[in-house]
Amino acid sequence: MDAELFGDERMDDLLAEENLKIIQSSSVFAFSLDAVLLANFASIPRTRGKILDLCTGNGVIPLLLSQKSQVPITGVEIQSKLYDMAHRNVTLNGLSEQITMIEGDLREMPAYFQNDTFDLVTVNPPYFPTKNQNHWNKNDYLTIARHEIYCDLEDVVKACSKLVRPGGRVAMVHRPSRFVEILTLLRSYKIEPKRLRFVYPKMGKEANMLLIEGIRDGKPDVTILPPLYAYTDQDQYTSELKEILYGTTN
Amino acid sequence: MDAELFGDERMDDLLAEENLKIIQSSSVFAFSLDAVLLANFASIPRTRGKILDLCTGNGVIPLLLSQKSQVPITGVEIQSKLYDMAHRNVTLNGLSEQITMIEGDLREMPAYFQNDTFDLVTVNPPYFPTKNQNHWNKNDYLTIARHEIYCDLEDVVKACSKLVRPGGRVAMVHRPSRFVEILTLLRSYKIEPKRLRFVYPKMGKEANMLLIEGIRDGKPDVTILPPLYAYTDQDQYTSELKEILYGTTN
Repeated sequence: MDAELFGDERMDDLLAEENLKIIQSSSVFAFSLDAVLLANFASIPRTRGKILDLCTGNGVIPLLLSQKSQVPITGVEIQSKLYDMAHRNVTLNGLSEQITMIEGDLREMPAYFQNDTFDLVTVNPPYFPTKNQNHWNKNDYLTIARHEIYCDLEDVVKACSKLVRPGGRVAMVHRPSRFVEILTLLRSYKIEPKRLRFVYPKMGKEANMLLIEGIRDGKPDVTILPPLYAYTDQDQYTSELKEILYGTTN
Repeated sequence: MDAELFGDERMDDLLAEENLKIIQSSSVFAFSLDAVLLANFASIPRTRGKILDLCTGNGVIPLLLSQKSQVPITGVEIQSKLYDMAHRNVTLNGLSEQITMIEGDLREMPAYFQNDTFDLVTVNPPYFPTKNQNHWNKNDYLTIARHEIYCDLEDVVKACSKLVRPGGRVAMVHRPSRFVEILTLLRSYKIEPKRLRFVYPKMGKEANMLLIEGIRDGKPDVTILPPLYAYTDQDQYTSELKEILYGTTN
């Protein structure tokens, strides 16, 4: 299917998903390993329920999840240009029946959806706190995607808590340095952490990514999953990462 | 040095520490891998300051730490029979000048030490919550060491918080299933988690032990250390574990 590309946008294959293409741009937004790992990590409702992806960017997580689930998926993005990209990605891949994109602020989504809740909420939020008010005036897509300008971690967790049904799941990817803050916030918003996986760049190094899933109103008891290593000692992707990225270890 | 042994007590070599012997007993108390890993994990003041070990059992942690540090070490044990074993272990190894054992309840230690605080507090507390009040009447050394009968996790963290100096460290070993509870309690008692290490029985399995160290009044920012694997796929100790246990990988 053809699609219009703007500026420096390009159309890439979406990894292992042979049927999927994705529009992205180095200057505006290109999906990261983090999003792919989150889509792989989350406990996905396959045939019943519905999924919400906050901070969806160019919609990579809804696209990936659509290949594993038949349920309706909604993505929310605050930046117009990224929302537009996400919307075109849905159309481009013929997924308009399953995936809906919303341009909006995650803090307003609980009101927008009223009493409607989701079985799974995924989110790959901005990682970096910003105290530099200059950022607020910068019209920089990447800065907004990466820094806590339009929402901070508490806004994200609060929105997830209101948008997930009791017993439903919230899955997030973030940096380990903010791990304790994440756990504290999840608990204070009644999302009990249940599954944790740390991603290490290679054996013997400190973790550089955190995958966490909680259950709304769940009982305390967390499982620490086996570590995921990204690279071998020879700086090649590990077999597990290749399997996640390309669906094959070759 | 000779030492009196009671009942089924035996005298063992203390692992890599060629100069150390330890009295223990399968029916009363024998040190575990957990204690050895905690002694290896903790950030130890070497030449200045002082160390406190709560729930010291037969004193294995003070004995191990004495080989890496010159500072005074105090152990606290609530069970008379274990305190007595710990005390004999100190005498047996000629360490009475460096190590002091106290028979007492950790909940009473802040009052006992008044305003005196420590640079490092280590603790290998009972792991299992117990709602079965029958346990309270059981005169069973192992049950008391393993179950939260005389103290629960909050008692432990509260005592650590009061006994460590501002900027000092608290190091604990525990089960990953209680991880979120541990983090929540540490934070609420102003011990900011700074270093975390998960121990996995082998590659591909979930973690079965958690090593955590926090700093009293520390700034939020936690490091997730490389995983520690106990066994290889061939069910042998890994090189790293051999190194910790025996000081050699052979």
